[in-house]
Amino acid sequence: MKTRRSDRLVDMTRYLLEHPRTLVSLTKFANLYESAKSSISEDLAILKRTFAERGVGLLETIPGAAGGAKFTPYMTQENAAEFVATLVNEINDETRVLPGGYVYLSDLLGQPWVLQKVGRLIATQYLKEPIDAVMTAATKGVPVAQAVAESLNVPFVIVRNDTKVTEGPTMSVNYVTGQSKRLEKLELSRRSLPMGSRVLIVDDFMKAGGTIRGMASLVKEFEGEVVGVAVVVAGEVAHRVIDKYTSLVHVNTDKEGGLIDVQSGNYATEIFAPGNFTTQVNVTD
Amino acid sequence: MKTRRSDRLVDMTRYLLEHPRTLVSLTKFANLYESAKSSISEDLAILKRTFAERGVGLLETIPGAAGGAKFTPYMTQENAAEFVATLVNEINDETRVLPGGYVYLSDLLGQPWVLQKVGRLIATQYLKEPIDAVMTAATKGVPVAQAVAESLNVPFVIVRNDTKVTEGPTMSVNYVTGQSKRLEKLELSRRSLPMGSRVLIVDDFMKAGGTIRGMASLVKEFEGEVVGVAVVVAGEVAHRVIDKYTSLVHVNTDKEGGLIDVQSGNYATEIFAPGNFTTQVNVTD
Repeated sequence: MKTRRSDRLVDMTRYLLEHPRTLVSLTKFANLYESAKSSISEDLAILKRTFAERGVGLLETIPGAAGGAKFTPYMTQENAAEFVATLVNEINDETRVLPGGYVYLSDLLGQPWVLQKVGRLIATQYLKEPIDAVMTAATKGVPVAQAVAESLNVPFVIVRNDTKVTEGPTMSVNYVTGQSKRLEKLELSRRSLPMGSRVLIVDDFMKAGGTIRGMASLVKEFEGEVVGVAVVVAGEVAHRVIDKYTSLVHVNTDKEGGLIDVQSGNYATEIFAPGNFTTQVNVTD
Repeated sequence: MKTRRSDRLVDMTRYLLEHPRTLVSLTKFANLYESAKSSISEDLAILKRTFAERGVGLLETIPGAAGGAKFTPYMTQENAAEFVATLVNEINDETRVLPGGYVYLSDLLGQPWVLQKVGRLIATQYLKEPIDAVMTAATKGVPVAQAVAESLNVPFVIVRNDTKVTEGPTMSVNYVTGQSKRLEKLELSRRSLPMGSRVLIVDDFMKAGGTIRGMASLVKEFEGEVVGVAVVVAGEVAHRVIDKYTSLVHVNTDKEGGLIDVQSGNYATEIFAPGNFTTQVNVTD
């Protein structure tokens, strides 16, 4: 049954939101809705305009019979600023400070709406960059990795320092923790990451960055490439063992565990730097 | 600026998909799109019809000036059967069998599209049932919990048996594992679950169910109620220590670790039982 335009607009929106960063052919839509490709092209023009106006994402359309559409979700700098301000406000609570300078984040990172925005914001930095997988360390990084992977539409892999028998054969690296200089081990199941993958490393919280450096060397063991590093919260430290990362929030805790200062991380300059998001959004099809 | 119907349809679809199980007032939409409530009501009728025809979810509309709309995503039995068949087919691979009768699932449960469908399918059982939180055990249950929580639009909490200092004050229970009868401990951060919550327990893999029974007693410590238990894969065991659960896939491994049989779990009778989904979808507004 040939569908009405209004029905197509609703269902195409749903379809594209559920299949981000995937090229969907005009033929696929034409068959799905038993409609002419010319009608589908007109529908896509409406979606593209609305997504842009509402700051939802980039819809790239390739015209012609062999054409299609690719939806890449992003977050605008304005929406990002509002969201990060909410995060800063929530985290700026001295009861969150735990011994050792850690900050309790599990309630925030257990909320689907927070994770959805975290994922979309971190993915915005890699709007046009191919990524094969998102990597994180168990356990608290997992929700962040899953959220980012969802926006990028790629798999995520979980690195562990207590590999259970249930993971099968693993590859492992030893690494030195950033602050306390302990020797630790990180393991990843062999079959969870193809060799040579382009990997985005994410985590919930970073202090000196030792675990992230460990993950980076694990990526190397898998003959892959680290495309970037992103964390929700970076803690203030005297010396960071990694040099390039994106943080949404920056926290300064004192040695007795009091919270000194909570503010935006470096996301504005990293994610919205000229040449990243802004340029890319203007350079559409 | 007053928006066109086509633009409203696209953006309302996006908005409702991103805010499942939430009552959105007509006033909110009318303001957002600077349109009359009567126009918004007509838009919602189109969305409702399309969502139903495409098996995407239930859009309940409350008419009148004080009315609104609530979108509850579900999966149809037909789509569920197709998805579970895909899972069975993927899991039916003897290289997945690990020592101890465990099955390697991390690659599948690291794919956003698989998790999205797992979440939607498990949430379908609780279409009209209020749930406050989803609970799981670290680490491999986390992606499942997050996916289900996303469909239900509620927070998820992660129970650990190796609580780190970074969780703050915890509540804990001891429990006996289902098969090996070891004494273990499960802990949950005090501030991550409000007392008296209605909790859905989920996990990636269940054998005898000892960990799940442990989580259930933890829910009791928080003076809450277990609304249900759902797992992606249930392994065949001689004796299960919990009596009611929903599984998508059932796996029978032999003692030497060979895979004997992989088939659909009990989801069809649990999720699509008369009185659950079917009745509820027919009893719309």
